[in-house]
Amino acid sequence: MSGNEIDTLIDLMAKLPGLGPRSARRAVLHLIRKRALLLTPLADAMQQVAVTARECLNCGNVGTSDICDICASEKRATGEICVVEDVADLWAMERAGVFKGRYHVLGGTLSALDGIGPEDLAIPRLIDRIEAESVTEVILALNATVDGQTTAHYIADQLEDRVRLTSLAQGVPIGGELDYLDEGTISAALSARKSL
Amino acid sequence: MSGNEIDTLIDLMAKLPGLGPRSARRAVLHLIRKRALLLTPLADAMQQVAVTARECLNCGNVGTSDICDICASEKRATGEICVVEDVADLWAMERAGVFKGRYHVLGGTLSALDGIGPEDLAIPRLIDRIEAESVTEVILALNATVDGQTTAHYIADQLEDRVRLTSLAQGVPIGGELDYLDEGTISAALSARKSL
Repeated sequence: MSGNEIDTLIDLMAKLPGLGPRSARRAVLHLIRKRALLLTPLADAMQQVAVTARECLNCGNVGTSDICDICASEKRATGEICVVEDVADLWAMERAGVFKGRYHVLGGTLSALDGIGPEDLAIPRLIDRIEAESVTEVILALNATVDGQTTAHYIADQLEDRVRLTSLAQGVPIGGELDYLDEGTISAALSARKSL
Repeated sequence: MSGNEIDTLIDLMAKLPGLGPRSARRAVLHLIRKRALLLTPLADAMQQVAVTARECLNCGNVGTSDICDICASEKRATGEICVVEDVADLWAMERAGVFKGRYHVLGGTLSALDGIGPEDLAIPRLIDRIEAESVTEVILALNATVDGQTTAHYIADQLEDRVRLTSLAQGVPIGGELDYLDEGTISAALSARKSL
């Protein structure tokens, strides 16, 4: 359709989540139009990240050092560990800016269908960390899916009696309209109702 | 939120059309996970394109040489020029694979609101090409928007008596359902009806 290099770039861009062939073409034309402002900086940034990005050896967060900023900070050693499925969830928690402890990224959920067992997730390392970091509370912030909840139950079984175990509250999201919520959420919100 | 290089990459990715901050974060995590398979090749492809991409001096198509493959091919010298608004439209025409002539990319449409006049578009070069390439037919494949149609009328005025002027047919798209079409399309399809 055009030069070979451009086709290669379009094919690669189309492999990104959220982009298909059409939006990849659009993005590439945009990049070529903004060569100095966007294309060259983006190529440089990708090269940088390809070299520097690594997983935190302690919690599994993605950063640019062997131990991520959160695990390296003494301020975050509050004795609380928040367990999340993946790095995107960790970043979402950090954006909320309320949790002051450390994280533990499982790297997925238990799944009988996909053949993912406890040894495929970072559960043994979580158990190690509880002693090593004298953890007093583990907050399970797993997604409210079947696999997420199965994983939460499994971890709860493993950690019972060692630490305080909590999970995120379920209920009506802030700004949420009842009319648009599913029955499961409404029933969870109702059974966990609080007195005013 | 993580290493500085990663934040920079997310910010740049979020500037791509079709990606916002959330999908940029998702794409970057995906890239880091597929470092060897996707991130490094993508960075290389971008660097390549940043160096090699250029506009065809003749038609305005984007490629990797000063004269694009289409303008360079003698086979495409059919005496027909298809006028399109931008390179994405040219690529869409080429994907259909039916047009055998050459193209001319205007680089936009006339727009009184945005202050885009004939001198801002590649209209003078189009007029030059008609003699230089002994063009016999100009097909106006401009979008069916107000600005697109204004531009088509302006070009038609300029080229009158010099070449045969045609435009793409308007009607029901292949696979289109009448129920989902707007009134304008239905009325255009009706007034251009063909006898069977």
